[in-house]
Formats: sequence, C-alpha cells, structure tokens
Amino acid sequence: MTEARKIPKPSFPYGSPGELNSFLPYLLTRITHIWSSELNQALASEKLPTPKLRLLSSLSAYGELTVGQLATLGVMEQSTTSRTVDQLVDEGLAARSISDADQRKRTVVLTRKGKKKLAEISPLINDFHAELVGNVDPDKLQTCIEVLGEILKGKTDY
Amino acid sequence: MTEARKIPKPSFPYGSPGELNSFLPYLLTRITHIWSSELNQALASEKLPTPKLRLLSSLSAYGELTVGQLATLGVMEQSTTSRTVDQLVDEGLAARSISDADQRKRTVVLTRKGKKKLAEISPLINDFHAELVGNVDPDKLQTCIEVLGEILKGKTDY
Repeated sequence: MTEARKIPKPSFPYGSPGELNSFLPYLLTRITHIWSSELNQALASEKLPTPKLRLLSSLSAYGELTVGQLATLGVMEQSTTSRTVDQLVDEGLAARSISDADQRKRTVVLTRKGKKKLAEISPLINDFHAELVGNVDPDKLQTCIEVLGEILKGKTDY
Repeated sequence: MTEARKIPKPSFPYGSPGELNSFLPYLLTRITHIWSSELNQALASEKLPTPKLRLLSSLSAYGELTVGQLATLGVMEQSTTSRTVDQLVDEGLAARSISDADQRKRTVVLTRKGKKKLAEISPLINDFHAELVGNVDPDKLQTCIEVLGEILKGKTDY
C-alpha cells in the first residue's frame, strides 16, 4: 500500500478537528446525515420519507429487484424493506412481479403511478443535489465519485 | 455553475444502475451504511456501538464539546446525545465539565479511561479504514476528501 503524499497521515483517534475532517468515514457519515435530514423535511409534504424514496429510486435504476436486493441498495433491514414494499404496493407506487429472466424469482417493480411520483419530485431532488455539489470543481467531483464508486465496488456485489 | 465535462450528467430519477452509481448521495449513503454496520459488528465485544464511538472520537478531536456540538458532530438527536453522554459518564469514559474559555458553558470531556479505550480500539479502526480505502490511489483519495470537506463546510459551521 502506498502512502498519501500531500497530507500528514494521522491515525485514529484524532487529536484535532482538522484530522477528524480528513477521515473519510467521518465525512461520509456527516454529509449522509445532513442530506437525509434535509431531504426528509423537504419531502414531508409529499409523504415520501427517504427510505421509501431510496426503494423507488433503486427500482427506477434497476427496473426490477428482489426484496433482498432492495434491502441492500436501500440500506435497510430485510424485514423493514419488506414492510416498506408492502406500503408502496398499498399506495400503488410499486407492484409485486415475477422476474422476466427467472420465473421462480419474485421481484418488485415500479408502477406507472410510482414513475409519475418520481418524475414529480425530480425537480426538488435535482435542486437539492445541485445545491449540495454546485460549488465543487466538476473534475474534482468526478474524481470523488470514481473513488467512492471504487470503494463501494470493493464492498458489495452491486 | 459549470457542467461536468467527462460524464453525461443524468438527472434524478435514474434510469440505469450506472447512473445511480454516479449520484453522490447514493454512494455516500451506501458506504456510510456498510462502514457503520461492519464496525458495529466488530465493536460488539467492546460494548462500544458506533453512536458512542462517534461521540468519543469527536471529544478526542475537539477536546471539549457541548452536548449540542456533540449532537451535530455525532449525527444524533440532541435528546439521544444527552442520554448517550449520560451512559459514557456512567461508564467513566467521559466527564461533564465547565468550559475553560467560558465558565458559563457546560461541556463534556474525555476521561483518562476514555482516552485509553480509544487507544485500545485504534488498531481495529485503523485496519478497517485501511481496508476501506487501501486500494484507492492516494492522490485521488485526497481529492475526494477535499471535495467532501468542501461540501460539509458549505452545510455546517463545524
């Protein structure tokens, strides 16, 4: 393993705010929390808390997913995911289905109403995202996204 | 606002796994969740769940903090933070104090036992961190940390 050149490489536990601020998991945790709480507030009137939003967004990207895959992508316990899927089905935003690729596999898909809901809230999410990253140099942001993508790929199958 | 040059810039809701994987909040949420669950498992025998660890780590970096500051840095509700501080005080890992800078301000500090506890678990945390980022190019990782630091600074006072 090579060492970072530009910065001193302190190790846990950190002895200054600056050191803590260069600890990747700390930054990830803080920003994730801020993103999620601000979005939850903004989406309160839509009755779409972030766990539901994460499931709908994952379905939009993947087309169809099993409850297990939804739990992984939506970072929720399997039992909570199952209950949340039930709610989405009750609300008409998602439907249970059978996989096209494997008839034995039960999946979840977006309904037309679910797609419409995502389209409706997309300006809000896109504004939120632009506000989050709007001041960052685009090349640097792209590097950051690549780094995080690499880290995630090292940790999970999808 | 300038546009990213290298990648197409899809907007929410995403229509493919690749698009979802280039959405920063998604990457942050996934990695934060994986980091926190793996660490929680690893620290179960230490009886040090990640919320307690976040408070102790913040105290280590800042020296003394109010409960309000701890809530922000530890990404917890103020009431939960208050209860968790009570537990840390009961366990002898933290102590309530009065700010050196402002005698009217009540703060929390690490005790000697708290510092010792952090030192004891530091090899585990440092190994976990090395495993998380070990395969990433150090310069790119540094760019990513700077980007996230900039994003966090735009969102919070500290």
